[in-house]
Amino acid sequence: MPEARILIAQGGGPTAVINQSLVGAVLAAQRFPEVTAVYGARHGVRGIVDEDFVDLARETPQQLEAVAATPASALGSTRDKPDLAYCRAILKVLQAHGISHFLYIGGNDSSDTVRIVSDEARQAGHALRCIHVPKTIDNDLVGNDHTPGYASAARFVAQAFAGANLDNAALPGVYLGVVMGRHAGFLTAAAALGARYPDDGPHLVYLPERVFERERFLADVRATHQRLGRCVIAVSEGIHDASGEPIAAQLVQQAGGGVERDAHGNLQLSGTGALADLLCDLIKDQLKIKRVRGDTFGYLQRSFLGCVSDVDQREAREVGETALQFALRGDRDGSVAIQRCGDYAVRYELLPLEAVAGKTRVMEDVFIADSGNAVTDAFRQYLRPLLGSDMPQAHRLRGHPVAKLLG
Amino acid sequence: MPEARILIAQGGGPTAVINQSLVGAVLAAQRFPEVTAVYGARHGVRGIVDEDFVDLARETPQQLEAVAATPASALGSTRDKPDLAYCRAILKVLQAHGISHFLYIGGNDSSDTVRIVSDEARQAGHALRCIHVPKTIDNDLVGNDHTPGYASAARFVAQAFAGANLDNAALPGVYLGVVMGRHAGFLTAAAALGARYPDDGPHLVYLPERVFERERFLADVRATHQRLGRCVIAVSEGIHDASGEPIAAQLVQQAGGGVERDAHGNLQLSGTGALADLLCDLIKDQLKIKRVRGDTFGYLQRSFLGCVSDVDQREAREVGETALQFALRGDRDGSVAIQRCGDYAVRYELLPLEAVAGKTRVMEDVFIADSGNAVTDAFRQYLRPLLGSDMPQAHRLRGHPVAKLLG
Repeated sequence: MPEARILIAQGGGPTAVINQSLVGAVLAAQRFPEVTAVYGARHGVRGIVDEDFVDLARETPQQLEAVAATPASALGSTRDKPDLAYCRAILKVLQAHGISHFLYIGGNDSSDTVRIVSDEARQAGHALRCIHVPKTIDNDLVGNDHTPGYASAARFVAQAFAGANLDNAALPGVYLGVVMGRHAGFLTAAAALGARYPDDGPHLVYLPERVFERERFLADVRATHQRLGRCVIAVSEGIHDASGEPIAAQLVQQAGGGVERDAHGNLQLSGTGALADLLCDLIKDQLKIKRVRGDTFGYLQRSFLGCVSDVDQREAREVGETALQFALRGDRDGSVAIQRCGDYAVRYELLPLEAVAGKTRVMEDVFIADSGNAVTDAFRQYLRPLLGSDMPQAHRLRGHPVAKLLG
Repeated sequence: MPEARILIAQGGGPTAVINQSLVGAVLAAQRFPEVTAVYGARHGVRGIVDEDFVDLARETPQQLEAVAATPASALGSTRDKPDLAYCRAILKVLQAHGISHFLYIGGNDSSDTVRIVSDEARQAGHALRCIHVPKTIDNDLVGNDHTPGYASAARFVAQAFAGANLDNAALPGVYLGVVMGRHAGFLTAAAALGARYPDDGPHLVYLPERVFERERFLADVRATHQRLGRCVIAVSEGIHDASGEPIAAQLVQQAGGGVERDAHGNLQLSGTGALADLLCDLIKDQLKIKRVRGDTFGYLQRSFLGCVSDVDQREAREVGETALQFALRGDRDGSVAIQRCGDYAVRYELLPLEAVAGKTRVMEDVFIADSGNAVTDAFRQYLRPLLGSDMPQAHRLRGHPVAKLLG
């Protein structure tokens, strides 16, 4: 049996459980006698071309377990999107270090990088097994029931809206929370799991899968506020008009500012409170509601230390373990995918890279209410088991009224 | 023994443990045979003048315990700041319902309301015992070592910055988080407890107790970014220039917008991402750093469901229990205060209302580093026991380097 030299890297936005997949792969490698090296590249593909490696086989199991429970990419991440020249530089380094197996933990863009590296290696005659290990809080990888990282971020969003709803009930007004998700509304939709009683918020949920119409939005808010005396709204950062132009981009342009794009050509939507402020101003101006507050959940929803779904943890770990097994015992490159096979149970498959790479899953129609401003029970049923055990619940007083004496 | 009829209300911004104090008082009342009524007013003093009461004695212990563990004011809250006429309306309702004991759970402004009601009752010859029960995430009540609600919000901020630091280490750049706290920097300072290793963020902490100078701020960020290749910054929403003008207000005025003030004359600082966006733009423009991200923690930090300090929970409960005892067995009106009497231990005192009402505690000099952009070890020692047990910790790989082969 030829020796196996493994390189693992992490790319894209960190998640609460991405290190579970890393540690799952590292510890699983110990059970394969042919493995003679387990390296990690610092900051994703950038660390590969820079030859910036750490020896993961020298990490103690104790420390690895502690790192597994820590959010964000322990190896560091990157937003670099390799072109052909970059991929050839990657291959050159892999060959120099005798790497036979490459595992890249990441989302959409990372899966596309793995696809290119895989193609290039095959064309160059380099015997390299390439496995994409899924992660993304956006839950937007096709072919997956859901992706590691999504459930913990969804749990954060659900807990945040459960609390915001209580706060809004205590001091009534309009509360609007902007949630991450460029094209896929899965994370925003998770806000709905924060509601318990029929009059709990979020009362309105706006997803990038549906066209956002200002007048419709204002009418929705007005109706809810008139009915309940308050209104809690979940809005995806990726909401857009009928032409596909993001509402956030319209705002930035109206304000005369430039639009920042990343190496993948994606508009920067996070790390700014502009969208929430615009929508709050709109409500104040048009509906004459005085108390209107907006929060942008920003980086908290993907990095908050101490909000994690135990189901997500277990699955992310097993995805890493499974990726290592596919790499060493499988016969092809691919992308590990989670499939639901019970209520609730999952199994793992290896999909062709081209079936996942560069594609974006959005919320299925069955998950979105006909009104376009709410999710369906099918979505609640889909998400609930992912949130894990010990989801905190909000309780209210029974509130037995006392008779008025003065009138 | 004359019968005792108790009215409890909650005022001001909700906290994670304000219902512990409510439930503590309600359950403690059951042990006093002279108590014939325990009412709750909906939405603070507003519910009193509206005669909007619920019968708390009819709540089941099971439900009360569940409500105690739920954040935000279960009775509802208000921002109303009663004037003399309002207070006389309050007294009229209290007399009609034969209320002999009034407990108001709230912060600064609520304590002042209790003071006015207490004075008016005495002048009107109405036998009314008035007790202020402290709560505020701002930790700005004088005469208190700390206030119920602060520790849980501080824990949220510390966990948020611990996670943001990991995220920033994975994808380097500048990260700036804006934390609540109009005059007192205690909550912003809690960000420092998110750091573990010497190079962990937050690397810079800006408090309202010190004058904020733009040039100094930019120099701090530049120096940190040059040293570490990244920078994590905690900023209080209340930072201001040498004239006392809030930086947030300057921004709103520069942008041509109006400034919203509440019934207490306070500028609205929360519920908008403007300050974070301004500071991020400043860093991008002046320091030419590309990746700059800002979050405004907003309402999450005071309402997030599922982030609570068990020390805070216990103390808030005991503050409510103690308030009830002071009310029924004490001989004067007052404000319950937490005093530290060990490492770590507390006792409860009843302060005169005028010693607390309308006064604002800010961070003591001993808690702020001479640099003005960091906290001291004395502050860390002060805060750490309050955060409670099971604070999650971040771990990192040991990171044994692999020798480069290509260059």
